[in-house]
Amino acid sequence: MAQSKLDAVIALAKRRGFVFQAGEIYGGSRSAWDYGPLGVELKDNIKSQWWQQFVRGREDVVGLDSSIILPKRVWEASGHVETFVDPLVECLNCHKRHREDHLVEAYEAKNKKAPENGMADIVCPDCGTRGQWTDPQEFSGLVKTFLGPVDSEAGLHYLRPETAQGIFVNFNNVLTAARKKPPFGIGQIGKAFRNEITPGNFIFRTREFEQMEIEYFVHPDEADDYYKQWAEDCWSWFLGLGISEDNVRRLDVPAEDRAHYSAGTIDIEYRFGFQGSEWGELMGVANRTDYDLGTHTEVSGTKLQYFDQASGDRYTPYVIEPSFGLTRSMMAFLVEAYSEDEAPNTKGGVDKRVVLGLDPRLAPVKAAVLPLSRNERLTPAAKDLAATLRRRWNIDFDDAGAIGRRYRRQDEIGTPLCITVDFDTLDDQAVTVRKRDDMSQERVSIDQVENYLAEHLAGA
Amino acid sequence: MAQSKLDAVIALAKRRGFVFQAGEIYGGSRSAWDYGPLGVELKDNIKSQWWQQFVRGREDVVGLDSSIILPKRVWEASGHVETFVDPLVECLNCHKRHREDHLVEAYEAKNKKAPENGMADIVCPDCGTRGQWTDPQEFSGLVKTFLGPVDSEAGLHYLRPETAQGIFVNFNNVLTAARKKPPFGIGQIGKAFRNEITPGNFIFRTREFEQMEIEYFVHPDEADDYYKQWAEDCWSWFLGLGISEDNVRRLDVPAEDRAHYSAGTIDIEYRFGFQGSEWGELMGVANRTDYDLGTHTEVSGTKLQYFDQASGDRYTPYVIEPSFGLTRSMMAFLVEAYSEDEAPNTKGGVDKRVVLGLDPRLAPVKAAVLPLSRNERLTPAAKDLAATLRRRWNIDFDDAGAIGRRYRRQDEIGTPLCITVDFDTLDDQAVTVRKRDDMSQERVSIDQVENYLAEHLAGA
Repeated sequence: MAQSKLDAVIALAKRRGFVFQAGEIYGGSRSAWDYGPLGVELKDNIKSQWWQQFVRGREDVVGLDSSIILPKRVWEASGHVETFVDPLVECLNCHKRHREDHLVEAYEAKNKKAPENGMADIVCPDCGTRGQWTDPQEFSGLVKTFLGPVDSEAGLHYLRPETAQGIFVNFNNVLTAARKKPPFGIGQIGKAFRNEITPGNFIFRTREFEQMEIEYFVHPDEADDYYKQWAEDCWSWFLGLGISEDNVRRLDVPAEDRAHYSAGTIDIEYRFGFQGSEWGELMGVANRTDYDLGTHTEVSGTKLQYFDQASGDRYTPYVIEPSFGLTRSMMAFLVEAYSEDEAPNTKGGVDKRVVLGLDPRLAPVKAAVLPLSRNERLTPAAKDLAATLRRRWNIDFDDAGAIGRRYRRQDEIGTPLCITVDFDTLDDQAVTVRKRDDMSQERVSIDQVENYLAEHLAGA
Repeated sequence: MAQSKLDAVIALAKRRGFVFQAGEIYGGSRSAWDYGPLGVELKDNIKSQWWQQFVRGREDVVGLDSSIILPKRVWEASGHVETFVDPLVECLNCHKRHREDHLVEAYEAKNKKAPENGMADIVCPDCGTRGQWTDPQEFSGLVKTFLGPVDSEAGLHYLRPETAQGIFVNFNNVLTAARKKPPFGIGQIGKAFRNEITPGNFIFRTREFEQMEIEYFVHPDEADDYYKQWAEDCWSWFLGLGISEDNVRRLDVPAEDRAHYSAGTIDIEYRFGFQGSEWGELMGVANRTDYDLGTHTEVSGTKLQYFDQASGDRYTPYVIEPSFGLTRSMMAFLVEAYSEDEAPNTKGGVDKRVVLGLDPRLAPVKAAVLPLSRNERLTPAAKDLAATLRRRWNIDFDDAGAIGRRYRRQDEIGTPLCITVDFDTLDDQAVTVRKRDDMSQERVSIDQVENYLAEHLAGA
């Protein structure tokens, strides 16, 4: 196809209401995106699956929801104020600023080699001038704000660049209130903010995004085992929800590329199909050692440690951190699910069909109820059925246009089941259920539809 | 009791891990709060109930999740930059700043009358000096930030003070993608930020908080009817989840006290039991008319209107806005649920019992599995049962201390059912299920426990 699969997904996401550009009527923004009616359902379904798998469904993990804005001291202690900086260069011709490392990466992706003469080889993506750059300057990726009655340093706060620090500073609170002991974890889903200089690639790199993170606290001697185990569990989670093994890869991040707190990082990358490099980071598992609890203990004066009554041992736990990009995960599930095939049309031929083969647990709409035609007897029967099913699932009702066209509309948003109410329904009290993937149809008695859905949606 | 009910709830919330002070190890903050393991579950349960009742369960409402940070132009168009301001006065002695209207309200609550001599009667809450105030100055409640490579006016953005504007600017996107027509609504749950000068009263007034909002778009002629209907539906929602009619009241807000966009506002207030005035606003329903769609149309040049093909009528819909405080709702459910009564102890006497009588749908833990004692046969049987139930519900496991004490721990966090695995279980394959509210007990076969829970938790 002329259009890449990624472009097709982005177009579909906009057209059908998964993702809109934020502030579009004011010219839009590449910084942030809005999630439409289908997007918010898909995103919530991913969150629910994650929370059930890694938090609620586990005896050794509890949840947390900490605040987005935290005082400056938290980010000084965490090392972010000092080290969460990127080298920025400015084009001497057009004065636009770019991240030096991103320019070099883009050069390498395009030319399949490093720039031999450094920045002298690199062309400004805005104005096309080659090699005219200022020296790099450090630029903070933290998003700042001011709280309180006066704009001043005293009111300076930062929006969190990761949800993790809200977990670390609550370590003692959770340990005591939830009566946990290592190994145990604290999970959190929430927004984070980074002042990215060059946001881009749809919802992949944005200034406002969502994370799903676990900080798993273990005895230092056991850190390496849990680190490996978590990397496997995360990998399995994606595969269990439909990501193909061909489209993910695992990267052991070399020491020089790791974050300042990490003694080991495994990235899981997905084949998004970007121009240049196809792959992008989906999530990372890091061994953050005792860096975070240790520095917060030092700076705050509050001991964030565990005292093991049985052994008399007091220690600062190591932290294994599986950190998922929620919005990136959503993008990966969309790209993975997208395909084009053929479906029979009413003229005996075939039409192109776009289908999102989402796992039923992730599908934003679980079933669509379709009266065969707008009719004073079919419509009420179909509306009643939809209302009954809506008590339990997200259900669409659509009575506009030919039935084949309505199937196509549901296929391309990933609805696993379509339920057609036809004239026979009025006699036999049964409906035709059509499956998205193989387009097979079967007749199901109305009073059995709820059970049928429960079974075929596999706990969705 | 010497301690007020509200104080008791706040102490319980901290001790058991519903709500922690944000950044506590760094001296804490009154601006924001962190939700602990039980708080995040309770808050999520409120969200789920709301979403099911008002969004997913309704044919005429769809969801949205728009970004927190929006460009300055959105807030200029919405009127927030100009009108979202409060009068601030500064004490001439200690130079602390306060909202003039809050000082007057506090005076009135304490003295049961207005200050006769205006600000001359009012004592500084910080230093005690009477009547020494600057003239009021306007202060913006918007929280600002800067995005992009340079801190400048060009990068000035605001964190949303309400989720509503993200809905209005997406009106056309949703109309088209979701193929809706008035009357229809768009619902959203998310964080909002206001630079409150005097945050306080626990999670009631904070700078970072969560809202649940619907913007319901109707033909102007029908606005008043829907306005009344929504006020009733919202009222019923709280009562249906356990809020007592004695503790809520409805306030028709007089024109001079309404927000700049409102042609009518009904507040629902809850009896939180604050010092001074007991009551606080829980939510509001406003008739925002065509103010928002109209001004965004004017400023952006994009028509946010509806064209009715049947009648050939083009119009700007009126908006009815039910706006719920999520964190305030959580506080109300906690205060409402809290009570103290007596429970029999093992010595034949009675002990004080704290119980949270939360609706099972809201309870953070649905059931606790308690092996009667730590024992090599009881513990595995209890752990197996807990693991099975955890696939579907949030389940506690507790084997520490006397069984009566464990019941108390579950009662005070509102767990509806306790399941005790005892020595008879090994013979009869049954467990004792104890109900929170009446402390009655019954024997249930292990293979029936899941059905028993499904029935007694009423769809929770």
